[in-house]
Amino acid sequence: MLRGLLAVMPPADVTAVVNVGDDMTLHGLHISPDLDTVTYTLAGAVNPDTGWGLVGETWQAMEALARYGGQTWFRLGDRDLATHLYRTQRLAEGAGLADVTAEITRAWGLSLRILPATEDHCATFVDVVGEGELSFQEYFVGRQHSVPAKAVRYEGALAARPGPGVVDALIAAERIVVCPSNPLLSIGPILAVADIRATVESRRSDTIAVSPIVAGAAIKGPADRLLTELGHESSVVGVARLYAPIVATLVIDEADADLAGAVEAEGVRAVVAPTIMHGPDEAAALARVVLAA
Amino acid sequence: MLRGLLAVMPPADVTAVVNVGDDMTLHGLHISPDLDTVTYTLAGAVNPDTGWGLVGETWQAMEALARYGGQTWFRLGDRDLATHLYRTQRLAEGAGLADVTAEITRAWGLSLRILPATEDHCATFVDVVGEGELSFQEYFVGRQHSVPAKAVRYEGALAARPGPGVVDALIAAERIVVCPSNPLLSIGPILAVADIRATVESRRSDTIAVSPIVAGAAIKGPADRLLTELGHESSVVGVARLYAPIVATLVIDEADADLAGAVEAEGVRAVVAPTIMHGPDEAAALARVVLAA
Repeated sequence: MLRGLLAVMPPADVTAVVNVGDDMTLHGLHISPDLDTVTYTLAGAVNPDTGWGLVGETWQAMEALARYGGQTWFRLGDRDLATHLYRTQRLAEGAGLADVTAEITRAWGLSLRILPATEDHCATFVDVVGEGELSFQEYFVGRQHSVPAKAVRYEGALAARPGPGVVDALIAAERIVVCPSNPLLSIGPILAVADIRATVESRRSDTIAVSPIVAGAAIKGPADRLLTELGHESSVVGVARLYAPIVATLVIDEADADLAGAVEAEGVRAVVAPTIMHGPDEAAALARVVLAA
Repeated sequence: MLRGLLAVMPPADVTAVVNVGDDMTLHGLHISPDLDTVTYTLAGAVNPDTGWGLVGETWQAMEALARYGGQTWFRLGDRDLATHLYRTQRLAEGAGLADVTAEITRAWGLSLRILPATEDHCATFVDVVGEGELSFQEYFVGRQHSVPAKAVRYEGALAARPGPGVVDALIAAERIVVCPSNPLLSIGPILAVADIRATVESRRSDTIAVSPIVAGAAIKGPADRLLTELGHESSVVGVARLYAPIVATLVIDEADADLAGAVEAEGVRAVVAPTIMHGPDEAAALARVVLAA
């Protein structure tokens, strides 16, 4: 979605507010998987087979770590490691996550702004049936998000403040786009920061979401199952219900055209368009829809 | 020297008490260069060209780190990184450095015991003319130990306690060998821990050193220059004077045979033998001399 927006408008006019609820400390390193995946993807450097990590990556460190019986479940490629080394060192020197993110973004030659939703501790936990609470990555990577969940909690959300620039960007934006990402695991941790949620609510009429659910299913990841497990409806109507307080418009896929009326019954205008992006052309087309809607 | 000792006696009977004064935190990782160099060397895995790091190493992480303008002056190979990742994670989990070191030693298939001199903060600083105090690695690697020093300080030494097992090993040892390493930068930080020094002093008659100075010069590294800069004598006599409180015997090279009398005048018995080790045979021969002396 972001790739599409960058293709149809000046990149410098785009600000991405990115989830950090899945950040973790592992091996002493501060790892921000979503910030990195956004950066690598927009830089054209993401591993296309996995959707995370770097293309052409090597795995020497992980292989050597296995010798020690170290924690290799969260795969960190050798080149990817550099991002975590750099971030951790800069944070230890007193830099904020937003500044470090800007440095990393620039180093990859990107001209959009990528802002961490918060610099405070606001971590996603998933309460799994029979296991108790798992950190996001334990759930998502460790359990391959294949275990039933009964709750999601954003630890620290009450005290977390928006990251530097986030509220200003939301206020100044011509349009706020809620990308078609997991409402509970990717968008939820951002909106869990009260001042972010309140600011988006105050801009509701200029805020548009693209449904991550198409014909009842998630395009990728566990959004559909998780919505159902947590008592929501895995459909564009369920998404409309969740997002109604913050968005005036929801883009739904043509496959869900018959549900447009039900979406609008939730108080959200429905725009029907092709939303499945197989490549840059479809992403750009969807971006045009979002900007024109 | 350690390789030689392991060749001529049962490895399980050897305990190496290793300097941690050059440990550092970089990129958030706990790096113990001397522990690692000892481990890699004894495992036959050290890079023979550098004397540190691993043979056949790759440098993907450092190359990628350079993209960010990160700190690449302290070169960490991809496979070497795994050691620091593992150590840092285990320390964060609450393990002690001695336990982690034992785990790493075992993983490399070594049967000697490698003990960090201390688990407390005891860090070597070098006061450099015109620059002030540098951490050991800033001096040694960053400045390539080519700047004049006026003092060496072991920060935290007063409060530092011997690492687990160190005093017991020193008390139980048939013989204590002070290896031919830099007296101020490698042996000094170990002896700066008061209880280690006192224990070695109490075993003086069973303690033997091998002079790291041969014919006035260090075999490698800056020991000779540093001794002179700090007011010592860069000779076997200067070494004897430094070590006289802790060793009864000093092995000096045949090149210094004419100084045997001057060494003994310092109250230290001199044993003359070939001390320059070009390979395993010479190391084993020297080890036999040390054990028989």
